[in-house]
Amino acid sequence: MSWFRHLSSKTHRFTSLSRFSTSTVPVRHAGLGPTKAHEKPRVVVLGSGWAGCRLMKGLDPKIYDIVCVSPRNHMVFTPLLASTCVGTLEFRTVAEPIARIQPTISREPGSYFFLANCTAIDAPNHVVQCESVTEGTRTLDPWKFTISYDKLVIALGAQPTTFGIHGVYEHAIFLREVYHAQEIRRKLLLNLMMSDVPGIGEEEKKRLLHCVVVGGGPTGVEFSGELSDFIVRDVRERYSHVKDYIHVTLIEANEILSSFDVRLRQYATKQLTKSGVQLVRGIVKDVKEKKIILNDGTEVPYGLLVWSTGVGPSAFVQSLDFPKSHGGRIGTDEWLRVPTVEDIFSIGDCSGFLESTGKQPLPALAQVAERQGKYLAILLNKIGKANGGRANSAKDLDFGDQFVYKHLGSMASIGSYKALVDLRQSKETKGLSLAGFVSWFIWRSAYLTRVISWRNRFYVAINWATTFVFGRDISRI
Amino acid sequence: MSWFRHLSSKTHRFTSLSRFSTSTVPVRHAGLGPTKAHEKPRVVVLGSGWAGCRLMKGLDPKIYDIVCVSPRNHMVFTPLLASTCVGTLEFRTVAEPIARIQPTISREPGSYFFLANCTAIDAPNHVVQCESVTEGTRTLDPWKFTISYDKLVIALGAQPTTFGIHGVYEHAIFLREVYHAQEIRRKLLLNLMMSDVPGIGEEEKKRLLHCVVVGGGPTGVEFSGELSDFIVRDVRERYSHVKDYIHVTLIEANEILSSFDVRLRQYATKQLTKSGVQLVRGIVKDVKEKKIILNDGTEVPYGLLVWSTGVGPSAFVQSLDFPKSHGGRIGTDEWLRVPTVEDIFSIGDCSGFLESTGKQPLPALAQVAERQGKYLAILLNKIGKANGGRANSAKDLDFGDQFVYKHLGSMASIGSYKALVDLRQSKETKGLSLAGFVSWFIWRSAYLTRVISWRNRFYVAINWATTFVFGRDISRI
Repeated sequence: MSWFRHLSSKTHRFTSLSRFSTSTVPVRHAGLGPTKAHEKPRVVVLGSGWAGCRLMKGLDPKIYDIVCVSPRNHMVFTPLLASTCVGTLEFRTVAEPIARIQPTISREPGSYFFLANCTAIDAPNHVVQCESVTEGTRTLDPWKFTISYDKLVIALGAQPTTFGIHGVYEHAIFLREVYHAQEIRRKLLLNLMMSDVPGIGEEEKKRLLHCVVVGGGPTGVEFSGELSDFIVRDVRERYSHVKDYIHVTLIEANEILSSFDVRLRQYATKQLTKSGVQLVRGIVKDVKEKKIILNDGTEVPYGLLVWSTGVGPSAFVQSLDFPKSHGGRIGTDEWLRVPTVEDIFSIGDCSGFLESTGKQPLPALAQVAERQGKYLAILLNKIGKANGGRANSAKDLDFGDQFVYKHLGSMASIGSYKALVDLRQSKETKGLSLAGFVSWFIWRSAYLTRVISWRNRFYVAINWATTFVFGRDISRI
Repeated sequence: MSWFRHLSSKTHRFTSLSRFSTSTVPVRHAGLGPTKAHEKPRVVVLGSGWAGCRLMKGLDPKIYDIVCVSPRNHMVFTPLLASTCVGTLEFRTVAEPIARIQPTISREPGSYFFLANCTAIDAPNHVVQCESVTEGTRTLDPWKFTISYDKLVIALGAQPTTFGIHGVYEHAIFLREVYHAQEIRRKLLLNLMMSDVPGIGEEEKKRLLHCVVVGGGPTGVEFSGELSDFIVRDVRERYSHVKDYIHVTLIEANEILSSFDVRLRQYATKQLTKSGVQLVRGIVKDVKEKKIILNDGTEVPYGLLVWSTGVGPSAFVQSLDFPKSHGGRIGTDEWLRVPTVEDIFSIGDCSGFLESTGKQPLPALAQVAERQGKYLAILLNKIGKANGGRANSAKDLDFGDQFVYKHLGSMASIGSYKALVDLRQSKETKGLSLAGFVSWFIWRSAYLTRVISWRNRFYVAINWATTFVFGRDISRI
C-alpha cells in the first residue's frame, strides 16, 4: 500500500522517545528569564477578565511583549452569562478567546498565554511563580515555572462571597464562569426530567423544580428573569407534564437592585412578581443538600440553588504583602500602581484606591474594570515610548493624568422583554432612569455593540433571533 | 415592601414539605400500568438514536401514546460529530432534542420521555423495568420504575468495540456521543496550551501534540481530516509557538475506508498523507497512560487517543434472552419483529435479520437505522389503524411488505474541502464514485438537508460560514 510507511523508521523515533521519557528527569522551575537588551520589555498580566483583557487589547505589541497567565484561555462576557443557563444564548457566544482579543499573544515569539495560576510574586526580583492548570488530568503533571517581568499587572478579579455560611461551596452554584452556567443548565434540565419519572411524589417534584436564587443584585435578578422567561415560554411547551410544579424564589437580605433608582426597584419588584418570581426577604443561615435554612428557622427545600451575593478578594490576593484597600483589595495610587513596589499595577475587582488617595472606593463592576484596563494600556504604552518600559526604569517619569472613573449608568434585564436603565452618575445624584421595553431594547443594543469580536456579536444576534423563532434549546449535552 | 410576602405562609408550606420528605418512605417501583380501554395503546421505544428517533417522528400520535426511555434527551447527528471536536460546528448544532423530533412526547398526557436506562424486559407480561439516570448527583436517588407496553421497540444501538484490548476504556476517547466530542476538544486544547508552558521538553511537547486515531473507518478518517484542517488553518495562527510539534497518526489494521471503491480509497490515502496525516498499518496490543503498544512491539507515545474501530452490541443487548443474529445482535424476522415473543420489534445497530430469513446482514449504519425506523413507524401505524395496537391483538394481522434495504451510497469527508461519494449499491456492484471538491460540496449539501430541524439546519450553515470567515473557535469552556 502506498500509504503504508514501514514502521522501522517510526519504531526508531518512538523507541528513542520512550527511552528519553523514562530516563531523563524533566527540567522543573524553568521559565522566562529577564528580558535582554535586544528584546522588547515584557508586560506580564495576571488574569483574563474584563480588566486584563481590555488592557491586553490596548497594549502596543510593537512596544511590549505580552504574557498572560490565567486558568482560562478566554474572557467571559459576564453581563450575558445568565442568559446562557436557559439556552437563550450559547455558552460559546459569551466566551471570547484571548487570542482573538490580542492576536499577538499566539503569534509573536516573545508573547505567550499560559494556562496557569500565579502562586507567588517576588517583587524585588521582578519575578512571578506559576503553576500550570491540569484539572486533574492524569497524563499531565502540574508544572512549576517562573516568569520575569518588566511590568506586572495584577488583574485577578474577585471570587464569590459566602459570608462563611456552611454548605454554600458544596451545594450552591455560583454564576461567574461559563462552567457555572453549564452546571446550572445541566442540573435544571436533569431536575425537569427527573420530576417526570413515575413514582416521584408530589413534594419531591416541588422540591426538584424549586429554583432558589440567593442575592438580589443584577446577576441574581437577571438570572431570575431569564428563568421565568424559560418557564413561561419553553417549560410550558416542552415539559407540560410538570409545568405547574416549577417555581423561582429570589432571596435577598436587604433590597433587590439596591444600587438602582428607587422607582426602578419598585418597577422590577412588580414585574418579577408578575412573572411568577417569588421575592423573599431573608438571611440564609445554613445550606443543606436539599434545603436551605433561614435565620428565622424557615426551611426552604430546593432543587437548584444559585448563589450570587457579591464578591470579595481571593485567598491569593489576600495573602499578598501589599498595602490593602477597603475589603482586603490590593491598594493602588491614583495611577493604579501598587505604591510600595516598583513596576506593579493592579486593576479590576481585585484592586481599590488606597485611603491615602482620598478617592471614593469604586464598585466591583465590569465597567470599572474595563475603564481601568483601557487607562492602564494607554499609560503603559506612553511609559514604553518614553523608554520606561524596562524593569526599574520608570521611576522618574511623569505619569500624567490620574485614573478618573465616570459612571455611565447601570442596566439590568428583568425578563419578559423588560429591562432597567439607570443613567444617574451615582446613588445620590439625579438623572434619567428608564424601565420597560424601550430599556430592554437599549439593554440588548448596548450589549450587542459591546461584545468584543464581530464573530460573537454576530452569534449573539443569531442566538437571540433563533430563540425568538424556535424557542430555547433543551438538549442536555 | 410590596414584594415582601410574609414568610408565615411559606413557612407552613415548606415545613410541612420537609416533614413529608423525612417521614414518608417514597414509593418505589411505581410506573405506568397497562393501558385501559379508553386510552390509546402505548408504544415504548428504548433508545434515542437514528432508529428510535426516526420511528418516533413517524408514529401517529392520534393512534398511539409514545413513551421513550433513553439516557440522553436528544439525538446525535453522528455524521457531523467529528466536526464539533475542533470547533467547525457547535456541539448543540449536532444535537436534536427529542421533544423537537416528536413534540407529542412533551405535551400529550400519555406520552413521556424518561431519562433512564432499561434494565429488564418481561416479555410475557409486556412490562419493561427501568432505572432513572442521575449521573452521580447526590441529591437524586436512582429511581426504579416499570412501564407496561402494548408494543415495544428495542432501538438501543451499539457500543464501541475494544477487542478486549487492555486500557482502551481508561485512556482512549470514543466518538459516539456529544460528551465524547467535548472531551476530545478539551483535551486537545489543554495539550496545545500545556505544550507551550516553559520548561516542557521537546519530546514531551511531541507526545502531548501527537494525536493518534485508531480505526480507519469513516469516523476515524473524517476526524483525522478535521484535525488536519484545524492544524493547517487554526493551530498555525493561534498556537504558532508549537505548530511544528502537532501531528496526526491514523492506525488501521487493514485498509482505511474498506467499504469504499478502491479508487476512492487510493484518493483518500493520497489526500490524507498530503495534508499531514501519517497512515500506519498496525494492530494495537496494549494501551498505556501515555503510549500505545503495537503488536510488533512498537511504542507510540500520544497526547490524545481517539478510538473508532467499529461497534458491537451492549452488555444489556447480549444479556437478552432472544434469538440472536450475527455478532450477538437481536435477531428479527422480515418485518423487524422478534419472532419468539409478542409485540416486540428491534431496529438499528442492536438488531439484525435472523439467519432463517435468508437475508444479508445489514451494516451498522445511520442509513440502515433511519430506514428501519421509517418502515416500522408506517407498519405500526397500519397495525394501529387495523385495531392491532393493543398488546396481543396483532397476531392474525397481515403485516404486508417486508423491510427491504436499498443502499443509497456512502460518503466521507477527508478534510481540505474534499470528500468521497460512493454511489454503488454494494461492494461488488459497479456505480458512480466521486472524489474531490464536488464531492465535498455534495457531502455538505446532503448533510445540511438531512439535519432534522430547521433550527439546526440553520445553525449548521451559520457555523460553517463563520468557521470560513473567522476560523474555528478555540475558547476552552
